[in-house]
Amino acid sequence: MKLHHLNASRSQRIVWLLEELGVEYALVRYNRDPQTRLAPDSLRDIHPMGKAPLLESDGHVIAESGAIAQHLLEKFDDGHRLHPAPGTPGHTLYLEWMHAAEGAPFLPGLFLGYLAMSGLGDHGLGDYLRQEKEKASRCIEDHLKDHAYFAGDAFSAADCMMGFQIKLAAEAGNLADGSATLDWFNRVSERPAYHRTLGVGV
Amino acid sequence: MKLHHLNASRSQRIVWLLEELGVEYALVRYNRDPQTRLAPDSLRDIHPMGKAPLLESDGHVIAESGAIAQHLLEKFDDGHRLHPAPGTPGHTLYLEWMHAAEGAPFLPGLFLGYLAMSGLGDHGLGDYLRQEKEKASRCIEDHLKDHAYFAGDAFSAADCMMGFQIKLAAEAGNLADGSATLDWFNRVSERPAYHRTLGVGV
Repeated sequence: MKLHHLNASRSQRIVWLLEELGVEYALVRYNRDPQTRLAPDSLRDIHPMGKAPLLESDGHVIAESGAIAQHLLEKFDDGHRLHPAPGTPGHTLYLEWMHAAEGAPFLPGLFLGYLAMSGLGDHGLGDYLRQEKEKASRCIEDHLKDHAYFAGDAFSAADCMMGFQIKLAAEAGNLADGSATLDWFNRVSERPAYHRTLGVGV
Repeated sequence: MKLHHLNASRSQRIVWLLEELGVEYALVRYNRDPQTRLAPDSLRDIHPMGKAPLLESDGHVIAESGAIAQHLLEKFDDGHRLHPAPGTPGHTLYLEWMHAAEGAPFLPGLFLGYLAMSGLGDHGLGDYLRQEKEKASRCIEDHLKDHAYFAGDAFSAADCMMGFQIKLAAEAGNLADGSATLDWFNRVSERPAYHRTLGVGV
């Protein structure tokens, strides 16, 4: 099994999940262009969209971090240690946050990044997106006030998926002291698999 | 079971999937503001992100179309008629395209919509996004040259998920005559459940 990994990208989620699962994998590293921040063209040799992460597994190349995570959980988490089974507590929350990691709570920050890179951060569209991002941050914070982890009482793959966004917020100094989101980040940061992830080089 | 449905939104995917599954549901309709194209504030009474679709099921409100689809398939598709089981042909493609419907092949078009609404369509960022969108369209077209449906030989929920994007392209006249994508669209348009979806009012 081979993970095509781009620095400072969503593939951090999959490194973390692989480390949590404790499975063997080979890492193939790619680096963003330091000026444009774009992925190198060589990723397009593996998959036509040219994005990371990409997982080679069982003769398939799988794109999209959510699909890769689901594939890994089906293959290596029979015991449902990291993905609550249907009908068990946390399953519905798990589903929602697995997808939210690419959905409404994630998009405003991503769009704002594009605007900032293009010198459009001060445009009115940025104001709208900042409001949306603020709403998303409140939504995450309110959830983590009520739940220790995204799927409820127990750590799951949804935490790996949401972690990329929250790590970016933490690094930008956007998590207030005493916030539930910062508490969550500190809690998951103590996990041995998270330490190993940082060692891989995110 | 109750689906909160916003016109001209991703919730079309879920109406279609519900119609394919043939299950009973109540529809609660919301309309975009004709000027701003934003969802009404009343959706925030149901879920703090204030987006559609939202599904009320078994005492939970579930957001994110991918999560809602997965919930519905677990609940109503034991026989795996609309979601290939792990280990069966098409399962890996199914996973990838279920997530691609919110991922790399979908985002450039969404971002371009935001730019156009903000009078920024001619900005250089738009040029980059148009290239990305073109790449996504080619990726979809190449896939559908080789496969009758997104998950391979058989129709699945991945077709419902991807359908929203392709329907928009068809309505904008962006699917070339004789393209595999247009053939796919014509093929799924003949499905009785798709006709019922249009009847609901997308």
